[in-house]
Amino acid sequence: MPDKSSENPLTPFGPARSSFKDAKPLSDDELKLYNQYMSACLYLCLGMIYLKQNPLLQEPLQLEHLKSRLLGHWGSDPGQVFTYMHFNRLIKKYDLDAFFISGPGHGAPAVLSHAYLEGTYSEVYPNISEDVEGMQRFFKQFSFPGGIGSHATPETPGSLHEGGELGYSLSHAFGTVYDHPNLIALTMIGDGESETGPLATSWHGNKFLNPKVDGAVLPVLHLNGYKINNPTVLARISHEELEALMIGYGWTPYFVEGSDLDSMHQAMAATLEKCVTEIRGYQKQARDSGKAFRPRWPMIVLRSPKGWTGPRTVDNHNLEGYWRSHQVPLADVATSKEHLKLLEKWMRSYKPEELFDKTGKLVPELRQLAPDGHRRMSANQVTNGGTIRKPLRMPDFQDYAVEVEPGVTEVSSLSNIAIFLRDVIAANMTNFRLFGPDETESNKLGEIYKAGKKVWMADMLPEDADAGNLAMEGRVMEMLSEHTVEGWLEGYILSEPFIHIIDSMVGQHAKWLEVSTRIGWRAPIASLNILLTATVWRQDHNGFTHQDPGFLDVVANKSKDVTRIYLPPDANCLSSVMAHCLKSTNYVNVIVADKQPHLQYLDMDSAIAHCSKGVGIWEWASTNADEEPDVVIAACGDVVTKEALAANALLRKYLPDLKIRFVNVVDLFKLTSHEHHPHGLTDHEFDSLFTANKPVIFNFHSYPFLVHRLVYKRKGASNIHVRGYNEKGNIDTPLELAIRNGTDRFSLAMEAIDRMPNLVNKASMVREKLLNEQIAASNYAFKNGIDVPALRDFKWPYGSPGGKADSNIKETVGNKIGKNAQTAPAAAVIGASD
Amino acid sequence: MPDKSSENPLTPFGPARSSFKDAKPLSDDELKLYNQYMSACLYLCLGMIYLKQNPLLQEPLQLEHLKSRLLGHWGSDPGQVFTYMHFNRLIKKYDLDAFFISGPGHGAPAVLSHAYLEGTYSEVYPNISEDVEGMQRFFKQFSFPGGIGSHATPETPGSLHEGGELGYSLSHAFGTVYDHPNLIALTMIGDGESETGPLATSWHGNKFLNPKVDGAVLPVLHLNGYKINNPTVLARISHEELEALMIGYGWTPYFVEGSDLDSMHQAMAATLEKCVTEIRGYQKQARDSGKAFRPRWPMIVLRSPKGWTGPRTVDNHNLEGYWRSHQVPLADVATSKEHLKLLEKWMRSYKPEELFDKTGKLVPELRQLAPDGHRRMSANQVTNGGTIRKPLRMPDFQDYAVEVEPGVTEVSSLSNIAIFLRDVIAANMTNFRLFGPDETESNKLGEIYKAGKKVWMADMLPEDADAGNLAMEGRVMEMLSEHTVEGWLEGYILSEPFIHIIDSMVGQHAKWLEVSTRIGWRAPIASLNILLTATVWRQDHNGFTHQDPGFLDVVANKSKDVTRIYLPPDANCLSSVMAHCLKSTNYVNVIVADKQPHLQYLDMDSAIAHCSKGVGIWEWASTNADEEPDVVIAACGDVVTKEALAANALLRKYLPDLKIRFVNVVDLFKLTSHEHHPHGLTDHEFDSLFTANKPVIFNFHSYPFLVHRLVYKRKGASNIHVRGYNEKGNIDTPLELAIRNGTDRFSLAMEAIDRMPNLVNKASMVREKLLNEQIAASNYAFKNGIDVPALRDFKWPYGSPGGKADSNIKETVGNKIGKNAQTAPAAAVIGASD
Repeated sequence: MPDKSSENPLTPFGPARSSFKDAKPLSDDELKLYNQYMSACLYLCLGMIYLKQNPLLQEPLQLEHLKSRLLGHWGSDPGQVFTYMHFNRLIKKYDLDAFFISGPGHGAPAVLSHAYLEGTYSEVYPNISEDVEGMQRFFKQFSFPGGIGSHATPETPGSLHEGGELGYSLSHAFGTVYDHPNLIALTMIGDGESETGPLATSWHGNKFLNPKVDGAVLPVLHLNGYKINNPTVLARISHEELEALMIGYGWTPYFVEGSDLDSMHQAMAATLEKCVTEIRGYQKQARDSGKAFRPRWPMIVLRSPKGWTGPRTVDNHNLEGYWRSHQVPLADVATSKEHLKLLEKWMRSYKPEELFDKTGKLVPELRQLAPDGHRRMSANQVTNGGTIRKPLRMPDFQDYAVEVEPGVTEVSSLSNIAIFLRDVIAANMTNFRLFGPDETESNKLGEIYKAGKKVWMADMLPEDADAGNLAMEGRVMEMLSEHTVEGWLEGYILSEPFIHIIDSMVGQHAKWLEVSTRIGWRAPIASLNILLTATVWRQDHNGFTHQDPGFLDVVANKSKDVTRIYLPPDANCLSSVMAHCLKSTNYVNVIVADKQPHLQYLDMDSAIAHCSKGVGIWEWASTNADEEPDVVIAACGDVVTKEALAANALLRKYLPDLKIRFVNVVDLFKLTSHEHHPHGLTDHEFDSLFTANKPVIFNFHSYPFLVHRLVYKRKGASNIHVRGYNEKGNIDTPLELAIRNGTDRFSLAMEAIDRMPNLVNKASMVREKLLNEQIAASNYAFKNGIDVPALRDFKWPYGSPGGKADSNIKETVGNKIGKNAQTAPAAAVIGASD
Repeated sequence: MPDKSSENPLTPFGPARSSFKDAKPLSDDELKLYNQYMSACLYLCLGMIYLKQNPLLQEPLQLEHLKSRLLGHWGSDPGQVFTYMHFNRLIKKYDLDAFFISGPGHGAPAVLSHAYLEGTYSEVYPNISEDVEGMQRFFKQFSFPGGIGSHATPETPGSLHEGGELGYSLSHAFGTVYDHPNLIALTMIGDGESETGPLATSWHGNKFLNPKVDGAVLPVLHLNGYKINNPTVLARISHEELEALMIGYGWTPYFVEGSDLDSMHQAMAATLEKCVTEIRGYQKQARDSGKAFRPRWPMIVLRSPKGWTGPRTVDNHNLEGYWRSHQVPLADVATSKEHLKLLEKWMRSYKPEELFDKTGKLVPELRQLAPDGHRRMSANQVTNGGTIRKPLRMPDFQDYAVEVEPGVTEVSSLSNIAIFLRDVIAANMTNFRLFGPDETESNKLGEIYKAGKKVWMADMLPEDADAGNLAMEGRVMEMLSEHTVEGWLEGYILSEPFIHIIDSMVGQHAKWLEVSTRIGWRAPIASLNILLTATVWRQDHNGFTHQDPGFLDVVANKSKDVTRIYLPPDANCLSSVMAHCLKSTNYVNVIVADKQPHLQYLDMDSAIAHCSKGVGIWEWASTNADEEPDVVIAACGDVVTKEALAANALLRKYLPDLKIRFVNVVDLFKLTSHEHHPHGLTDHEFDSLFTANKPVIFNFHSYPFLVHRLVYKRKGASNIHVRGYNEKGNIDTPLELAIRNGTDRFSLAMEAIDRMPNLVNKASMVREKLLNEQIAASNYAFKNGIDVPALRDFKWPYGSPGGKADSNIKETVGNKIGKNAQTAPAAAVIGASD
């Protein structure tokens, strides 16, 4: 077909069109060198995709030089290589501290080629040396058994963004530059990626970036026009629309569009320099004046052909500049002699013999184009954040103890932990931020604003003075996009600073960690700590749609080497768990805690002991903990622990001779075998707590199947009767929700009775009493629209008899909060949630 | 504090600022009526939040008239009420077919009030009559036990968008108007919601909407300025940025901003009329000319105070126009007499006595402002799509049979089903679309383009002629946003047309269905059918990040009343399952099938029998299916079935006397008890297949724990040894992935041997042989970067001896595809994936 495309402003072919097309910052000599450097990179990209032997084409290309399976993606490599290379010039010129994020999927060859040419790759992997033999290994290992993947995986030096799941490049970039005032995140965004929801909203990150205390993000939207098999949306709208979109997102867009190499080099060099100058200007202005503001930061739209510099057509089908160049362009090279020749011609067009010397090393005049040491983007220390991680200055969490009369005191665990977190923030004002989607206050964590307010770089209004808690310099990051705050958080911890709490999702990060722990040169980074507060049991009004505790199932499927799940039953346990998690590295810690006031059970010493073990018998709540019980009442989770304890009390009231053991689980993975998870108990340990043959009534915070799958190998597995959350629509009260799931005290007690056949005679009468009580409570709740008598009024009526439990008995009354009582007023009065 | 806010263009206070501020379409009389109608709605909103008695304030407000627990959200109600009301005028004037989507969270009072005033509510719920008694019930039931939720839940007439999880209003709107050429979706988008990723990218839906064959979406971005406790981003950027953003998204934005009621009424009436006129003009142009194009559709930015018309301040704190009006404005009304008085004054300010007659019915001059019958947005039939659903014209799936030599024939199930789907599309060109994120071709479904191409309303280029498969009128919807395509799909099926296949997520939709099935007036809608093709076992190059089959765990946690999971092992089974799912209603059906060529096992008759049962013994693959076996080899999933069958063959080769039963599971929920899921087997049925005491080696597609939790109650549960996917990084070949998970033939055979202690003597020798074979295969795969000898070469070597299995033996050779062989060339040659 006739190629009229260069006449269309939406195609990338032709001389450069750019805002600075007349600027010619590069001399002819430089131009030649940059052309060659780009050729070297692209040659390496092709080598990775195709070759396992004859890496420099020192002999004619033969079939046996090819990998038997061709994998990898060519399409986005040239544009990425081009951008990275031109930024190197500015790093050298201005001594910039920068790194590169590769957003387009499977774009690893682009970053790998630079890392190799910069020498970083050989430093990290001495076996992949800068010579013919090393280059051969470098090629062969790519997307090959025993080698590396086609994304910028953790094995890639200079990477902190894998790019496997698309959409997080820009939020990772923002997260990384927070509190790194001199850092620039050069961020390539694929035009496919730009269609995802997470990416589409992450442009607004510029309303949360402070030029005074944070670094800068320089996004390069890479319009190469196509996804796997479709055009991209942003490549097929008018220039005017695209420009308006970027201005609307709050950026200053500059365009670099075309395919002609010389004019594109000049345009990109000039445009990047303009961007760097603007960035440094804004930062200087804010820092010199001490006054932060929101700059309209620069960004670049790079429109270049997909598979740029590849064959324009193959067999009369479009290749360069079309979706066919997305992955491996000449996939049938093993069976088509003609295509094999074409590949050789294509690879030789980059003139490898002029780029590398005979030993296979990049020639010195090209090597000098890239920076040295940590100025190389492939060796920037933030991309191996653990190497510069500073330990968190931590107050002693024991100073935040809640005094407790077991089962009688009521406290909101979150209000209490907010005090601790406030002080953690105050002690770590440049390496600790809290991330969440507009829920900090409603989650009773408002106390932390005393140490650090919410970052807000968009416009402020006079009314914000009315408890708005906004500030240009703050420590709390809130935007109503779980994707964005999670992305910020991941970038933040990957790059060095310490901690981060969020209600959100994870998954890819767990994978990154799992692989990182097995890479010698990757230093441990701060754990990803997730505080889940939107628990299902108190969803009085959010209703059915807000009920899904399945996040725990998702996390439980992730690698045992990185995942930890904690369900502290009360405030002191939460403090103990939180402090532990804040100190840990390389984990995904999930902590589940409700925000409402709750019964308290353990004083600080007992809480530490309990949480260290992760699971334990509560002696004070058992009839005689040393004796073989008739029944075990167990619970994991705050609300369900209270119900289980109340069931325990009902059983004691009606069946005073019954031997009851009460077990509480904080660390969920204790339930599984030590063979399945490092925290797992041995069978012996498990049986010593839960018995091997007695009925266990287990009240669980989340889906009961999760417990079943954890304990399925245990001897007594068939005696473990789990009650927990299940999907049920049209639930009217928290009590009804509990009753329909069998997690309320009455159901639990009845279940216990049912599971002890030897009780049959006595049991039927007691059962009837319990049923009547349940019905009465339910009716009361239904009629009044509240759940007071069922869920809220209970106090443990039996004190703390004998043994270790004595240490739990204090002279506390009511809600008194130990030594921090005087500092905890604000959080207590916030009533509303979302 | 002094209120200077009205001077700031970012605050909503003051006379209307709009593009049509001088237009005065409403007479003074009309103005009065619209003020009153709005008052009636807002009065009802407050009634729902606060009152359980004295609904018309016919006596002084007393404490006992209040609900004991105050729930619900006031903040977004006024702006929504206002918009809905003014659109009613245009529905009447132009006889429009329209409905309303409420995007802001918890905005139900706004739509409920309209549905009640329009009489729809009383028609659907006769008990909630249009009189004082009905109004009292209407108030009391809101967010009250036994009543309804605070979102626009399925119980709400006129709703097809619940709004529980924010971000899907706009994609639902687009989905609903596809193939409804005269329909207008009036869509309120909250400014909080607009920060989410899914919403941010869904604006681009206008590149996929055809003015000739589809209806229109009229978005109203509601800038009320605040989320729960934060300003919103879009309310705090300049007018210029916001306008540019909307233009960049491809819309024509009109602004209506202010708080002064009279001028706002005039501005909104004029602006909405302008929008409707433009929409109809674009549609007429496309339909008259027969030429589709992409209009710059109109949209409205409505900036009005949060909690508009409420008290401006309370106790010197901002209320109207601030985040404090988000939920219940006077939360302490039960304890503060002053606030109780304030509430009464506020409610009386709407003058209920002038709006409703003494019986409690809306006065006629107000009632006539709203349309009648199905023109009422609360009664539009698309919002109860099942009432207008047409049955799908379906070809007989048996005509697409693959002829099979069991365990020998190789076919790609997806290439085969593509032919069936092509013909389904061709037979249903106005009520069937296929949705997916840029993967149709790589999933070997390209054949369907022959019946319907990909819809593309953005710019086209000459090069698209080169197999671009784009068209303005098409049947395939592709955008690289799983959120968006899932949203489109949900809207599409909720509103009437039939089906929809997607790789994506679900969850909220399952909840909607679960509740809908229990609402008498909601007619069944088409099922949500999800075809998951990105299975983990063949991820040769996508690598670790693309591996997560946990979607099944998520679905398995949803209500048993709506979820179904199928893992057809081969092409004929996939056809049988697909046809079944296409015909079903009100389910979420998940079908898992790999796109690569696979061994075939069952001819069409056997496949139908097998899929109808959902699980069965494969006699031809068992030594003697009637005999008590020594071991059961079971599998669920396509790749794992092949490995299990190969393990079976290995055992027969080395231990010819062994009695082996082979069981295949298609319908995952067969594994669980019939008490837990309607598809579940009884224990007797289960034992007759799997035995109660023999070792079962179960090879599973997904996480093994999912099987464990389904079978945990079965008698033989402890004998069921499940192998499946687990998170492991640094996997190099599919074979290594299988070996490390124990799902490869060798591991399975060794496991079987290990589980039969009576085999011990013979076993050690066989085990060693198997181990050596495994090592050899692994080394070969590793060295060559392919998995051919291990995974791909196997054919079942034992024929199909005796019994029912005979019917599976045909004279087929190789890949021959029954009567459709001649029509299936394209899909077979597409090799690449992403």
